[in-house]
Amino acid sequence: MTETAKQRLELWVEELHQKQLGLRYKVRRTLYSGESDYQQIDVVETEGFGRMLFNDSIAMVSERDEWVYHEMIAHVPMFVHPRVARVLVIGGGDGGTVRELLRHPSIETVRLVEIDALVVEACREHLKLTSQALDDPRVTVTIEDGVKFVKDTDERYDLVIVDSTDPIGPATPLFGAEFYGNVKRILERGGCVVSQAESPFYEPEQQRSLLTILSETFERTAIYNYSNLTYPGGLWSFTLAGRRDLCPIADFDAARFDRENLECRYYNRAIHRGAFILPEFQRANLGALLSPFKTEP
Amino acid sequence: MTETAKQRLELWVEELHQKQLGLRYKVRRTLYSGESDYQQIDVVETEGFGRMLFNDSIAMVSERDEWVYHEMIAHVPMFVHPRVARVLVIGGGDGGTVRELLRHPSIETVRLVEIDALVVEACREHLKLTSQALDDPRVTVTIEDGVKFVKDTDERYDLVIVDSTDPIGPATPLFGAEFYGNVKRILERGGCVVSQAESPFYEPEQQRSLLTILSETFERTAIYNYSNLTYPGGLWSFTLAGRRDLCPIADFDAARFDRENLECRYYNRAIHRGAFILPEFQRANLGALLSPFKTEP
Repeated sequence: MTETAKQRLELWVEELHQKQLGLRYKVRRTLYSGESDYQQIDVVETEGFGRMLFNDSIAMVSERDEWVYHEMIAHVPMFVHPRVARVLVIGGGDGGTVRELLRHPSIETVRLVEIDALVVEACREHLKLTSQALDDPRVTVTIEDGVKFVKDTDERYDLVIVDSTDPIGPATPLFGAEFYGNVKRILERGGCVVSQAESPFYEPEQQRSLLTILSETFERTAIYNYSNLTYPGGLWSFTLAGRRDLCPIADFDAARFDRENLECRYYNRAIHRGAFILPEFQRANLGALLSPFKTEP
Repeated sequence: MTETAKQRLELWVEELHQKQLGLRYKVRRTLYSGESDYQQIDVVETEGFGRMLFNDSIAMVSERDEWVYHEMIAHVPMFVHPRVARVLVIGGGDGGTVRELLRHPSIETVRLVEIDALVVEACREHLKLTSQALDDPRVTVTIEDGVKFVKDTDERYDLVIVDSTDPIGPATPLFGAEFYGNVKRILERGGCVVSQAESPFYEPEQQRSLLTILSETFERTAIYNYSNLTYPGGLWSFTLAGRRDLCPIADFDAARFDRENLECRYYNRAIHRGAFILPEFQRANLGALLSPFKTEP
């Protein structure tokens, strides 16, 4: 036999997007694989992105870039609403959104309602970077369908965050009108709701559908963008809707932003404004559904 | 034999990024494959992204999203510089940047200096969406090394656009100090230069190196971002540097923007400002290398 260099077997995971794009990540090892009533759940250690959580083979969280998503879903509403004490997070079983919320001194309680116990379990074990926040005494983790929870609860919140997967499978009703009617019911008078709103490039119809529901339900509706590494196309959106006329730009609390002095890696004062500036194709798709700003972003 | 559904063979192309990420596109057919002195060139027809040009298996242009890159590289400097008549484009053999430049009535001549004749040939034949612009009578296509061209030419330009590939292989000197010294030499007194500046997520050192060279060479230096679908991570950057103190925000010509009334798909008045707003990690990486704006973006 001739001497040859040893070739270690290469492992890759792939997210297949709309049957036309594959996003593949080089993997060192699989840390967790499990199947719940709702989905397949995997945590892998990758070569370039740290640990990654996949639900049904779709990348949910990577240690390399999770801070983009979690900072932007949490800090934007936190600096617009004048005082958030009570938050409901629907989905987000990885804990990253809760972690960012807890950095604000006004937060008294966060309830996380996650439909899938296995997501929380897998993340508590293998994704501590985000899940550690779930151990904070201000946090209650409730394993329940978020749609049912908002329908039945008597609790009231200053802020609801819909930290959901794509609108397929169990997350579908989280993009519906009935759900948002109930979200409105459980919001305090000045409350607002932020939702994961998919990709402006790949899902313009879903963005229009969600914005239509929000604009029919709430006083004020806005959409803002962020760029991460692991969602197809990079540019993705959140919606922000409020029970009263809070303007995400005019009502940004710059003094409190300075006072709290959070060290963020993506979010900053200018990004707060810049995130609400939409590329022309997205503005054209959604324009009439958005409330005018009191101050231009 | 039992009857089975016919399975058409699936073809995919893959761009491998930093040995840790693969971007795969489903392919209908290969339209062109050629090898020049500089690189392997392929044009494929994809399932989801129209026709795509690959140089050395790296996606350069896709019909689906090329407008993002080409609008942002051209219109940002065109609305900051008060009157661009003569432009030099280095690289950009696909023609997309030239196409966007030619939409401005002030343009008298555009010289495209592309090192690789085969890129121009392949695009003229198979990527007319961008290459058609090269037939315009205001355009001269010169097949030559851009580094050599800027060193030797006696011509002078209002705007130089460095529409280059990544700084590997023939494009490496396009990211160097000597090159930019010569660019400065051939710029009119009020001239400016825009350069393809890689990814803030994946190439922070390259961005710092380019900004260092520019800030040592030019009066004013800025960097701005855009989000497309086919460059890894989506969020990528251009630099803008000028021989005199043009501020990309304060000197944006809003009246001319309204008058020219271009129909763009990505660029608009607010995006012009928003593109200069950097996420915190990028601002921290580059902050001291950037000239302060006269007006905040």
